[in-house]
Amino acid sequence: MKLNCDMGESFGAWTIGDDASVMPWINMANIACGFHASDPNVMATTVALALQHNVMIGAHPGYQDKEGFGRRHIPHTVDEIRHSIAYQVGALDALCALHEAQVSYVKPHGALYNDMMKDPALFEAIVLTVSKLNFSRPHPLSLMVLSKASNDAYIQIAQQYDVNLLFEAFADRAYTSEGFLVPRTEPNAVHHHPDLIKAQVLQLAQGKVKTHCGKLLSLTVDTICVHGDNPESIATIKALSQLLDTAQI
Amino acid sequence: MKLNCDMGESFGAWTIGDDASVMPWINMANIACGFHASDPNVMATTVALALQHNVMIGAHPGYQDKEGFGRRHIPHTVDEIRHSIAYQVGALDALCALHEAQVSYVKPHGALYNDMMKDPALFEAIVLTVSKLNFSRPHPLSLMVLSKASNDAYIQIAQQYDVNLLFEAFADRAYTSEGFLVPRTEPNAVHHHPDLIKAQVLQLAQGKVKTHCGKLLSLTVDTICVHGDNPESIATIKALSQLLDTAQI
Amino acid sequence: MKLNCDMGESFGAWTIGDDASVMPWINMANIACGFHASDPNVMATTVALALQHNVMIGAHPGYQDKEGFGRRHIPHTVDEIRHSIAYQVGALDALCALHEAQVSYVKPHGALYNDMMKDPALFEAIVLTVSKLNFSRPHPLSLMVLSKASNDAYIQIAQQYDVNLLFEAFADRAYTSEGFLVPRTEPNAVHHHPDLIKAQVLQLAQGKVKTHCGKLLSLTVDTICVHGDNPESIATIKALSQLLDTAQI
Amino acid sequence: MKLNCDMGESFGAWTIGDDASVMPWINMANIACGFHASDPNVMATTVALALQHNVMIGAHPGYQDKEGFGRRHIPHTVDEIRHSIAYQVGALDALCALHEAQVSYVKPHGALYNDMMKDPALFEAIVLTVSKLNFSRPHPLSLMVLSKASNDAYIQIAQQYDVNLLFEAFADRAYTSEGFLVPRTEPNAVHHHPDLIKAQVLQLAQGKVKTHCGKLLSLTVDTICVHGDNPESIATIKALSQLLDTAQI
Repeated sequence: MKLNCDMGESFGAWTIGDDASVMPWINMANIACGFHASDPNVMATTVALALQHNVMIGAHPGYQDKEGFGRRHIPHTVDEIRHSIAYQVGALDALCALHEAQVSYVKPHGALYNDMMKDPALFEAIVLTVSKLNFSRPHPLSLMVLSKASNDAYIQIAQQYDVNLLFEAFADRAYTSEGFLVPRTEPNAVHHHPDLIKAQVLQLAQGKVKTHCGKLLSLTVDTICVHGDNPESIATIKALSQLLDTAQI
Repeated sequence: MKLNCDMGESFGAWTIGDDASVMPWINMANIACGFHASDPNVMATTVALALQHNVMIGAHPGYQDKEGFGRRHIPHTVDEIRHSIAYQVGALDALCALHEAQVSYVKPHGALYNDMMKDPALFEAIVLTVSKLNFSRPHPLSLMVLSKASNDAYIQIAQQYDVNLLFEAFADRAYTSEGFLVPRTEPNAVHHHPDLIKAQVLQLAQGKVKTHCGKLLSLTVDTICVHGDNPESIATIKALSQLLDTAQI
Repeated sequence: MKLNCDMGESFGAWTIGDDASVMPWINMANIACGFHASDPNVMATTVALALQHNVMIGAHPGYQDKEGFGRRHIPHTVDEIRHSIAYQVGALDALCALHEAQVSYVKPHGALYNDMMKDPALFEAIVLTVSKLNFSRPHPLSLMVLSKASNDAYIQIAQQYDVNLLFEAFADRAYTSEGFLVPRTEPNAVHHHPDLIKAQVLQLAQGKVKTHCGKLLSLTVDTICVHGDNPESIATIKALSQLLDTAQI
Repeated sequence: MKLNCDMGESFGAWTIGDDASVMPWINMANIACGFHASDPNVMATTVALALQHNVMIGAHPGYQDKEGFGRRHIPHTVDEIRHSIAYQVGALDALCALHEAQVSYVKPHGALYNDMMKDPALFEAIVLTVSKLNFSRPHPLSLMVLSKASNDAYIQIAQQYDVNLLFEAFADRAYTSEGFLVPRTEPNAVHHHPDLIKAQVLQLAQGKVKTHCGKLLSLTVDTICVHGDNPESIATIKALSQLLDTAQI
């Protein structure tokens, strides 16, 4: 079971997160691409750090909205989103090329991720974009998406465009009974206690999650998203990494 | 002799240039990459237009400076410039990939171009960047540079990194006797009369240019840069294209 | 009857509109404040042009969204909007101060204007903001709003905060029967024929408008908004100005 | 002797500094205005915090350069700088107006500050700008400048435009024998040891400073600039505040 984490969210003189402390304990780095956070220098530094720790590199494109950190839904046409994602993935890919490396997957960020998961037409457009970007790549990009109670509709679209999906679950987010994340604006949307997070990760590693209304939901899980915003959560990531290593899950 | 022209300099609701009228008459499109001008949508539209007219696509990266249109020298470290160029070239390349196409060359824009031509360390860093970007490309990127009285130093560096240089001359810019462009802030830096431009192009096609002090300078010329900012200059580009076709140069 | 028009929408090297040709024929200039369009230099130039033609200066604040020209609804808290409007109005006011002039009114732009007209809580927050900005001004700012079939609710709020409202109608926009503008995404939302525009202006000057479903609606009209995006529409503005002068309305 | 400190340098989701811990111990807050750092919301929060602690509010305008935090010299015309400063000061002033407060002084930031101190024509243009902004203010803005070995030339210009100057010295920066700050790129440009800082402050409060070459320089000092970037430096600010209170300087 692979842990993925948002990385490279600093910008110019502003720092967010402690990437150097998180990177050793994760398997996949979702690297911001300069639209909702980051800049070419932060991206370059983050790519180098990921490679140093043998961490897979994912592009984490978002809406062009530094003021809102990509968390605000901004109306776009489907074509605008296709162009924006291609732009951001290509930019990160070139920074990887400076190290003879490549982006391995795409995971949309924040509001763009939410919009993708709620709008099948947008989902299809993003799958198509990834498919187009793969046309000349030796190692094709995967698309990371939120695993839900049923993923059939998404699998069908992805197969149509020959794009591999990576289903992710969240270590510290409460789930609705439909398998959506409880919105951050609602109470108890985010788990803070390490024990709660560890328990959810162990469940997820077995393909299950307890929803915020107590139901046990089956989930396909290829990777678990963790957050490392402060020393406590970073300690939790390290503990999760060791937990999964020990359990050999 | 190939004509190259800056294309795709619009941004959001703002239009600069009449790309649809220029594209049929040029051979190489230097496409802005979103830092000094353009955005992902303008880039996508410009790529499609170039492909429709069978025009080679070049990345035209600039300083991140929409307020100054990339014409202001902004201090950067060499690493910052390497990251910025990689970012921009990669972004355009991905938009090309949506059409199963690729960027063919890199031509820095404005102040970045001037800085590259004046600072050998920066030139070498840019050559190195292009070389790194070529590591996994079936068709390697070339680097377009200003042809000067002597290009030996630049050729030597480029060979060291196995990067192909494209030497360009300017149809409508006056030259100093060292083969630099007369700065735009000086009088008569830009030729406006079509006859003057045509005469300079015919000279350039034969590897020569008359400098602003009347000297005849030998120049290596792979491509000639033209500007299409208004109906008159677009008519001149069309005339130049036909002139070169007729002369079979 | 005063004509108001959006002015100063250029940005850096990018030009929108032909302000020098429009300014002589309008009475009130809604000047963009750098968030959805413009920059400090364009604002300074536009202020000088307005003063030269004795045109009242209005602040035209919008969402921080140059990519979308302020036409996209971007989620904000009410406090964020208060701060954004104060910032933009203050910025323009200081540029007026360079000429010993002042901003006379505030007219939100695009999506912000639409959001203000649909959300009474946001309307009240904006009225409060204008009221606060007036605390030390010799000449208080007015707030320009869309005149609707009934403006009572808005008048009541404005009186509570002692803010003067300016009711505007649109010369070239179709109206719904509730007195809203037909969204630009719908057919026939914008009148293009000069005769249609002139007829609507003469109606508006008498406090009436024919809606897109043919109904005749009474409207309170302090000022009429015109658009000068191209030579034809600028000619129409000139004609409207002369029409109103002749009619002495 | 008043302590001044740069405040409000956060931006969106990114935090710089711990303003809440610094504000109680300073007398004058140089508040960033959204160009090199900050945004309308951060500015509003910072204004409220300053008022709560009875701290004078200064506008801290910088070059439009978030990537470089306003520390890079970017070429501007004098008019562009006049417009940029007016814009930023006006924006902050309007956010103060929401609290029935006003900006008291202007202190340019970073590269703009350095450029002002090195270019008399730019200094005069900035003085003129402040003078124009004062035309309708009940309490005129002062301009904070670097105190040097001789300030006569600057005083003469300021008197000509009837602008009050505030001469500042730096608690933690080494001085050249001409009274300039040693550039940050040079060794020992910044004092880190609290004792060194305290000693320099006590000297400055008596109108003197020891330069980096050991010379004792007389300085006119109206206010001392302090930096609160980390817990240690914040503790130093508190100590300096108490030191000055005790010494009743």
